[in-house]
Amino acid sequence: MQRAHSEVAWQGKTLAVRVETYRHGDQEVTREIVAHPGAVGIVAVEDEQVWLVRQPREAVGVEDLLEVPAGKLDEPGETPLECARRELAEEIGKQAEHWELLHRCYTSPGFTDEEVHVFLATGVTDVAERPPADDAERIEAVRWPLSELDELIADVHDAKTLIGLLALRARRG
Amino acid sequence: MQRAHSEVAWQGKTLAVRVETYRHGDQEVTREIVAHPGAVGIVAVEDEQVWLVRQPREAVGVEDLLEVPAGKLDEPGETPLECARRELAEEIGKQAEHWELLHRCYTSPGFTDEEVHVFLATGVTDVAERPPADDAERIEAVRWPLSELDELIADVHDAKTLIGLLALRARRG
Repeated sequence: MQRAHSEVAWQGKTLAVRVETYRHGDQEVTREIVAHPGAVGIVAVEDEQVWLVRQPREAVGVEDLLEVPAGKLDEPGETPLECARRELAEEIGKQAEHWELLHRCYTSPGFTDEEVHVFLATGVTDVAERPPADDAERIEAVRWPLSELDELIADVHDAKTLIGLLALRARRG
Repeated sequence: MQRAHSEVAWQGKTLAVRVETYRHGDQEVTREIVAHPGAVGIVAVEDEQVWLVRQPREAVGVEDLLEVPAGKLDEPGETPLECARRELAEEIGKQAEHWELLHRCYTSPGFTDEEVHVFLATGVTDVAERPPADDAERIEAVRWPLSELDELIADVHDAKTLIGLLALRARRG
């Protein structure tokens, strides 16, 4: 595939839409693409419990969506792992000794370049001083026992959270 | 949360962006939201193999992304299951006797209302007559043995595909 044309069709504060034309042999296709900086999600396990957050997600009309701690790669030059460390501290006031990338994936490759890195964090302890967080007042931290991981997985409706928890389940056998 | 204002900021052929304002108590937040009709993904298992497709995904710059058969809910009134049956026939020329919803989830609830239904299809056989498909000439159907499911999962970088395959793995024990 060869990109023949690209233009920014709309520029917002957090998102932009590009309209692009590609050639596949003698065919041409047009794609509307939402540009996204990428994101991270963190499966943080402490004392046989996994840390989750509940928060309002206006885009999907849900008051209290259950997710792993997560955030956007919106600081210049920040790596996914650095972002994950920052978000874990901001969202639930924790740090972790061991970090491992479980999966990286495109959330919806038909229309956005968003890529999410999902990490497993273990050796979790409180941070000495909790950094300030955007929207923190609307984020509720929740602990869930790993003995009820299957029930949790059945209740989750966020893609990165499902991937992280299903991967955790796979590794625990 | 209470929606205070909503306007269409950009309208494309396949996507639209709304800018909305919400009130949380005495705070107001603005969200840029990509409207999406929703999608389905199908984990189709036949003879101890899972059916996959490889296709160019221009949005993420990948020539041959490996995914489960999938598609958008773009026909009026179509249910997710009807859409899944249609896409399975269009993309790989198959039908299935048994259908089960594995998970439904939001692909990226921070900025889009896209919801994906991921189905498990078993009792898979060829359709009598394969319907025409958009872009079919750029979709390559691939079979992968379930004995190598872990290797496949490690190679996948599409969210709905990871969810479907990890859920399949969980249920096979």
